Amino acid sequence: MDFWSFFVMDFVKQLQSPTLAFLIGGMVIAALGSELVIPESICAIIVFMLLTKIGLTGGIAIRNSNLADMVLPMICAVVVGITVVFIARYTLAKLPKVKVVDAIATGGLFGAVSGSTMAAGLTVLEEQKISYEAWAGALYPFMDIPALVTAIVVANIYLNKKKHRAAAKATKQEYLSKQPIAAGDYADKQDYPSSRQEYLSQQQAPADNRVKIWPIIEESLRGPALSAMLLGLALGIFTQPESVYKSFYDPLFRGLLSILMLVMGMEAWSRIGELRKVAQWYVVYSVVAPFIHGLLAFGLGMIAHYTMNFSMGGVVILAVIAASSSDISGPPTLRAGIPSANPSAYIGASTAIGTPIAIGLCIPFFVGLAQAIGGL
Amino acid sequence: MDFWSFFVMDFVKQLQSPTLAFLIGGMVIAALGSELVIPESICAIIVFMLLTKIGLTGGIAIRNSNLADMVLPMICAVVVGITVVFIARYTLAKLPKVKVVDAIATGGLFGAVSGSTMAAGLTVLEEQKISYEAWAGALYPFMDIPALVTAIVVANIYLNKKKHRAAAKATKQEYLSKQPIAAGDYADKQDYPSSRQEYLSQQQAPADNRVKIWPIIEESLRGPALSAMLLGLALGIFTQPESVYKSFYDPLFRGLLSILMLVMGMEAWSRIGELRKVAQWYVVYSVVAPFIHGLLAFGLGMIAHYTMNFSMGGVVILAVIAASSSDISGPPTLRAGIPSANPSAYIGASTAIGTPIAIGLCIPFFVGLAQAIGGL
Amino acid sequence: MDFWSFFVMDFVKQLQSPTLAFLIGGMVIAALGSELVIPESICAIIVFMLLTKIGLTGGIAIRNSNLADMVLPMICAVVVGITVVFIARYTLAKLPKVKVVDAIATGGLFGAVSGSTMAAGLTVLEEQKISYEAWAGALYPFMDIPALVTAIVVANIYLNKKKHRAAAKATKQEYLSKQPIAAGDYADKQDYPSSRQEYLSQQQAPADNRVKIWPIIEESLRGPALSAMLLGLALGIFTQPESVYKSFYDPLFRGLLSILMLVMGMEAWSRIGELRKVAQWYVVYSVVAPFIHGLLAFGLGMIAHYTMNFSMGGVVILAVIAASSSDISGPPTLRAGIPSANPSAYIGASTAIGTPIAIGLCIPFFVGLAQAIGGL
Repeated sequence: MDFWSFFVMDFVKQLQSPTLAFLIGGMVIAALGSELVIPESICAIIVFMLLTKIGLTGGIAIRNSNLADMVLPMICAVVVGITVVFIARYTLAKLPKVKVVDAIATGGLFGAVSGSTMAAGLTVLEEQKISYEAWAGALYPFMDIPALVTAIVVANIYLNKKKHRAAAKATKQEYLSKQPIAAGDYADKQDYPSSRQEYLSQQQAPADNRVKIWPIIEESLRGPALSAMLLGLALGIFTQPESVYKSFYDPLFRGLLSILMLVMGMEAWSRIGELRKVAQWYVVYSVVAPFIHGLLAFGLGMIAHYTMNFSMGGVVILAVIAASSSDISGPPTLRAGIPSANPSAYIGASTAIGTPIAIGLCIPFFVGLAQAIGGL
Repeated sequence: MDFWSFFVMDFVKQLQSPTLAFLIGGMVIAALGSELVIPESICAIIVFMLLTKIGLTGGIAIRNSNLADMVLPMICAVVVGITVVFIARYTLAKLPKVKVVDAIATGGLFGAVSGSTMAAGLTVLEEQKISYEAWAGALYPFMDIPALVTAIVVANIYLNKKKHRAAAKATKQEYLSKQPIAAGDYADKQDYPSSRQEYLSQQQAPADNRVKIWPIIEESLRGPALSAMLLGLALGIFTQPESVYKSFYDPLFRGLLSILMLVMGMEAWSRIGELRKVAQWYVVYSVVAPFIHGLLAFGLGMIAHYTMNFSMGGVVILAVIAASSSDISGPPTLRAGIPSANPSAYIGASTAIGTPIAIGLCIPFFVGLAQAIGGL
Repeated sequence: MDFWSFFVMDFVKQLQSPTLAFLIGGMVIAALGSELVIPESICAIIVFMLLTKIGLTGGIAIRNSNLADMVLPMICAVVVGITVVFIARYTLAKLPKVKVVDAIATGGLFGAVSGSTMAAGLTVLEEQKISYEAWAGALYPFMDIPALVTAIVVANIYLNKKKHRAAAKATKQEYLSKQPIAAGDYADKQDYPSSRQEYLSQQQAPADNRVKIWPIIEESLRGPALSAMLLGLALGIFTQPESVYKSFYDPLFRGLLSILMLVMGMEAWSRIGELRKVAQWYVVYSVVAPFIHGLLAFGLGMIAHYTMNFSMGGVVILAVIAASSSDISGPPTLRAGIPSANPSAYIGASTAIGTPIAIGLCIPFFVGLAQAIGGL
């Protein structure tokens, strides 16, 4: 079977998977004017359960890992996860008319990991009898979670800077225009911003022109999305949540995700028009990025190969999880963490194009590369 | 065991089934003045999940069916499902003091199908070694879904006509009384109706005296109940939702239904008084209707038997699913689709009387009829 | 392994169990200023499902029990469950600075039963080949439910008396101060209390100085917590809810509990300061109470042993369930039934200290006592 027919088949299969099927279903019923509404409180608890589960999965995987052996590949995974977001920030986000938050969210999804792509990679390695460390699969949370956290933090920094710039400009103009007005001008009390962040950024505005990064990181980590995920991570590492994980968070995950994807589809429909003029950039990014990310991880993995005797099979796995983009953990995290990003952009790019490319092209490419280099 | 003891036993068994037990439980705690409240957002998501599951079940069954073989029996099933609602509309609804929406909802439940009654019918056919097409069980969504859709649409048409008539009357009177008033009468701006439908029907009122049917059908299909069900149906037919169906929508179905039945029981308690003067009509209908519906389906099935070689076993199944009334898919659909109908009427009629009659009397009757006619 | 290392190990294990892990997790994220919020409607449905499940478990156990054999041990269990609450009411609640509702709630948890402690007790009996009645495990709902109901009722009586006393005092003062004011004083219409209970107690205030107990019991039973639990109990006893119990209420129990424990942890954090001056009393109570409760049950059990031939193994089980304190059924019930009680007090006392004491000390103590007395 040639590549294109494989690509088309995998594309169609992706469209039929529950994740994308419910997303498209949501778009269709929104387009048909359905009055279906999923209450906001339900979305909140679904997001909580999904993110807690993602954190628990990572935490349990970390607790069961032999961290001493894993340390260098683990650092590679973290570095790749963070770097991928910055690549999107300084390539995709700079393209004409591409919205910066959409680009950052897309980078977050491409930095995050797809469990099914990783599983496909492991299967190929086993078929080709290429050996790899048993714990290599446990590398994925070290790339997945840093990428999503980085995307949310970078997006919040960007949004704060933007607001700050607008506020600074406004303050300057206000200052100039208000000069003639006498002291005791009570009217501007009404200008006090309602949100605490806005207030802080306006307060700082006259003093210096930079946004303080640390409070924004702190704020991001305290937000509902990341605090649920990090709570799950901590509980997974330090306690024994296996009984509730197996009976509750894990089995309900895909079903709850289907409801959230439906909601995101309905939300995406109203914003799909925004993509008309930039869709080509997302297509280019989604085709090129998996290779760039994979090569970056492959290169870092080779360092671990030569210094720490990390197997070539492990290097391939690192490259495959870097090439993959998240269809499961990413969308709910980014919906809660970067609500202003357009889900049609980031889910469309990652799941509809990035995943077939990663499975159909990147896996054979990196296996071949490893065989060529490592003499497997 | 004679019929009456069987009937009483089955009646008691039905009362103990979770569906009816929670319904009665809800009535009892409402009667005792409990302050238990299930939040509205929870009811909304439960209804969404139940109806999506009903749609998915139907869609998956249809996708896995051999539609070419099934085409004639399938049409029979659709025709019976729709006809049953109109029978209720022109018999039960015309009886003195019976509320029209309650009668239509009852017709919808009797047109919809009970999985457990069908299972009982299949068991009897197997015990008697009567052969039937393997796909015969897959006929049920073709009767179930059209019946429920028809009931909701017919109820909405009735409610619109009623409102329309009231509005037309009001407009006429207003017109007469307002004649003397000069142009530029600003006061009647306050008479503008708030809802879009009301507005439309009032606008049309002076022009012609008929309600336009198509917009009401469209409106019904866009409502939360039918859009969830049709979404599930479409996803079941066109995509591969089996993984979330098996891990989420199907296993949670009965439990979520039990909560909804409790809510419906509490709601029903406050309206049970409405039934005092009409209960006898529901009893008569619930005893007679299963036979009428079953005979109609049996007759149509015989046409398929003679023209398309549809087996006599299949004809019996068609008759049994026509005789059955829904205890599972119907109540949540009708609660969301016809909220003004009284659940004590339609659930009481179908589950407490209709189901024991269908299982205890109709199954042996139609098996006997098939044996007498078909020489089995 | 000596007792202390066992105690510490069990204490650490308890902290890692999902119940306590999520509670502590909630406290930690609240301390770190997380913005995570679980919507109120979600808490309501979780409490409903947990309490319905607790009721169903008890009801099904009772239905499947041979009540005739069990009658005397059953009465012992009910008596112990109720007495334990009154012991806390007249010991712990009287200690300096201990809040009365916190003490009553703690008594409720120590009266309620821990399934895992009971399981540990049954395991020890089997290891030591001490025989006991097969139905002895079914005694637990007869202690669990009366204890929780009693705690809620006693707390409501206390709160009403307190309000009543305050109102009576206020009325007296008002009466005295208002004497000079002329009739037709419309101003005091604004003093009408908003809640019905307050109104009633103020109305009665001048007439007599006692609070009527029965309306408060009725009110407690009608509250969301107890009506869900008693509904589950009744459905478990009189109907066949096994299918929804096994597919829904039971498997989801621990997961839903973990979410509620997280919420209770966040709530507890803001109130942990209240415990600073009284923590020592809770520690003393949690160490002593399991022995007192166990000895009470052991004594009553011996009466059943001599009069009804209740086995010595059964007597030990009765003592062990009396010594245990609830980590599962209690917290959600008390959160809903006594919302003003401080969860850091009652959960801290029962789960962190009471449970390790019961498992590590009381089980061997009562097994030894039975062997010494009964010559096993």
